Amino acid sequence: MGAEYELAIIGSGPGGHKAAMQAAKLHRRTVVIDRGPMVGGVSINTGTIPSKTLREAILYLTGLGQREVYGQAFRVKADLTFDDLRRRMEQVIDVERNVIRDQLLRNHVTFMDGTASFVGPHELKVTSPESERRLEAERFVLAPGSRPSRPEGVDFNERTILDSDGILHLEQIPDTMVVVGAGVIGVEYASMFTALGCKVTLVDGRPDVLPFCDGEIVEALLFYLRDRRLTLRVGEKVVAVEEHASGTVTRLESGKMIAADVVLYSAGRRGAVDDLGLEAAGLTPTDKGLIEVGGTYRTSVGHIWAVGDVVGFPSLAASSAEQGRVAALDACGQPCDEIDPHLLPFGIYAIPEISFVGKTEEQLTEAGVPYEVGTSRYRELARGQIMGDTHGMLKLMVAASDRSLLGVHAFGPGATELVHIGQAAMALGGGVDYLVDAVFNYPTLAEAYKVAALDATNKLATLREALSD
Amino acid sequence: MGAEYELAIIGSGPGGHKAAMQAAKLHRRTVVIDRGPMVGGVSINTGTIPSKTLREAILYLTGLGQREVYGQAFRVKADLTFDDLRRRMEQVIDVERNVIRDQLLRNHVTFMDGTASFVGPHELKVTSPESERRLEAERFVLAPGSRPSRPEGVDFNERTILDSDGILHLEQIPDTMVVVGAGVIGVEYASMFTALGCKVTLVDGRPDVLPFCDGEIVEALLFYLRDRRLTLRVGEKVVAVEEHASGTVTRLESGKMIAADVVLYSAGRRGAVDDLGLEAAGLTPTDKGLIEVGGTYRTSVGHIWAVGDVVGFPSLAASSAEQGRVAALDACGQPCDEIDPHLLPFGIYAIPEISFVGKTEEQLTEAGVPYEVGTSRYRELARGQIMGDTHGMLKLMVAASDRSLLGVHAFGPGATELVHIGQAAMALGGGVDYLVDAVFNYPTLAEAYKVAALDATNKLATLREALSD
Repeated sequence: MGAEYELAIIGSGPGGHKAAMQAAKLHRRTVVIDRGPMVGGVSINTGTIPSKTLREAILYLTGLGQREVYGQAFRVKADLTFDDLRRRMEQVIDVERNVIRDQLLRNHVTFMDGTASFVGPHELKVTSPESERRLEAERFVLAPGSRPSRPEGVDFNERTILDSDGILHLEQIPDTMVVVGAGVIGVEYASMFTALGCKVTLVDGRPDVLPFCDGEIVEALLFYLRDRRLTLRVGEKVVAVEEHASGTVTRLESGKMIAADVVLYSAGRRGAVDDLGLEAAGLTPTDKGLIEVGGTYRTSVGHIWAVGDVVGFPSLAASSAEQGRVAALDACGQPCDEIDPHLLPFGIYAIPEISFVGKTEEQLTEAGVPYEVGTSRYRELARGQIMGDTHGMLKLMVAASDRSLLGVHAFGPGATELVHIGQAAMALGGGVDYLVDAVFNYPTLAEAYKVAALDATNKLATLREALSD
Repeated sequence: MGAEYELAIIGSGPGGHKAAMQAAKLHRRTVVIDRGPMVGGVSINTGTIPSKTLREAILYLTGLGQREVYGQAFRVKADLTFDDLRRRMEQVIDVERNVIRDQLLRNHVTFMDGTASFVGPHELKVTSPESERRLEAERFVLAPGSRPSRPEGVDFNERTILDSDGILHLEQIPDTMVVVGAGVIGVEYASMFTALGCKVTLVDGRPDVLPFCDGEIVEALLFYLRDRRLTLRVGEKVVAVEEHASGTVTRLESGKMIAADVVLYSAGRRGAVDDLGLEAAGLTPTDKGLIEVGGTYRTSVGHIWAVGDVVGFPSLAASSAEQGRVAALDACGQPCDEIDPHLLPFGIYAIPEISFVGKTEEQLTEAGVPYEVGTSRYRELARGQIMGDTHGMLKLMVAASDRSLLGVHAFGPGATELVHIGQAAMALGGGVDYLVDAVFNYPTLAEAYKVAALDATNKLATLREALSD
């Protein structure tokens, strides 16, 4: 029989939960350890789920999605408070926590409430306010998640100077806000608060917003954010954030000062490894609290795997879940394919939404791969007209050599759903001609694929004609 | 040079328009003939576009999509009138008409306003209130569309007894309604009016509603329609519809009588061939006004093709457009693949929405093909919780033999979009294992594919284990 458990999993976020489900399907004796109030991890409690629920509630209650149809003055709830929004978040968080507990229970996975810490390579101590116990396992999957980085010298007062955990406890919707950090989290919150009518200044020391995204799409996003009165300060370092009686002042290295009701400091996240006792297992995290892993998420210690935010980029719930599944398969001695990073979707739940899979124009140009772009704007589609959407678009990168799909970029309502049609075509070798020939329901946004594919193939034909003269 | 035009197209709906665009891309001298107010055909003027715009406006203005989140009493616009709804329809129709005119113009297609009629195999007479002219063309694509069938003995008064054209001119939202005919159009309108709070009785002489759809999905639809107080009378023939001072009475063969403010008679459609002078071209339509065609939509007269509603089932805008493209390619002497009916998507814009591609359970059982079903309910998905959707579902049919996808059935918000992920996987031979391995953005409805695929593969594994004992 060996140890009490065949697989012990630390953390019940997307990576840990999915690892547990996979091990359970293989009938392994599995235990998941997490603090009770954190079932579901950062994703469910302070990250993805609350922020996406907030986003949905904002879109609906402000009527923003429908303003182009029913006019600027249109607002479902005129006196929107942050409590209205928080109530929706709490409902969804409760349900999702229960879903996870239920799934673990139904699949005979033991859930242990507490903080886990290695005391030896195969032994954990699990501490809770009520008890302390020890358990042994043959193999481990570490999915401890992450927490917001808090830079030295910023005095988080949990009232006017907040990180992305604290923002969920706002008392009211501020009139003005500074968001420091133009990564995914910073951009998502900046876009939500502009949608609420808040005047947001977005600051980042780096020159580019979302540098891994396609440039044209980021440009479109910034255009719409600025249209909602966002001020962008990129290439500008923050030197101090000060609390004043009536709000805050953020000082930039360039000498600029920005007054705002609230500062959201979103300066990256670090792996939540401090309590894990990694040294007792023979592991050393990086200075960002990350654990290094190989292709199947195995660490340098052969019986330990690590997945999710603690292994770094991309730190997206969907990727973490897939990492958990791959790690558990590997840990259970099953064959598993490494995740193809080329087919990994990115979803940025800004308002408007961005999603893509594959290469950007910048990456293809850098790599010297000739491509043609096919574009479709939602407003050219009947579905776009019916929705009253004027800004959405789909952009396909098509290889000039063999007409294969190199990248799919979607911007606007439904982008995170829409991208998966292109992902399937890319993964299964469909190429642009599949999209030209496919029949799409009418009216749908999915039709954008056909329109964009025809745009690309017409350009390729024009080029071929020109060359044949 | 031959005739004045290389290709003459009668009708500017999805089939005619797409045929024209394809011919134009091939630099053919192309003319499209249609009555000015009918640019875009039935689809834009009285069919798909107004009904889908109406649907979107109803969903939004009644708050129906969000009632489970914000409570039953929630209604964006409490005093909703049919004029509110009609205004949105007219806006979208105007835009779509202009889009079509623009596209024809930009692509150097001649648009001729009038009613076209053959006067010889290669010659048309085009009559408008102002003028009559003649034109010759080498080849023809007929896309004249269809109009509602009007059974003998029903006195359409355009006020309380209406067909699906007349319904768009309602003066107010009725309290009670009888819908005769449980085909796609009847079901769509019945579901919209129940959403508006109208008490609807849906009557059909046939035993089944939407018999080409998966039975479980239709059952779910009917459950939700009945939950909104729909009365269903199937296998019941209508013998008379009477106009009374205060409304209407519909008499059924079984002796039942149904009083209602309004009767919508939706008893099929017939091809709009009466004005075409088909005999002068050597063509004879069927008694339903349909024109018979081969695999590339060529008629029995070698230089004439026919597409869209006039060739019968499925009479969906998306299919008609693809038929137009194939017919134009063939008419222009280009290679073209026949449309694979197995990959044709069906979209039924009821509330909730239905969409599918491939086989139903009933068809597979009938054909003796062993399959396993994988199901995912939206409410099990984080995205479903965020939307507050409790009824949506995705159902995959997986071949027990080779794990290929045999059918994809979606029910609920976004179904018509969602189905295209499965369509791509089916078309490109991905099979269920592609969906198990793919990474989907979180939270999305697209994740339903992964959940349903895991459900199916777990069932297949259980069966394999059982058999190996």
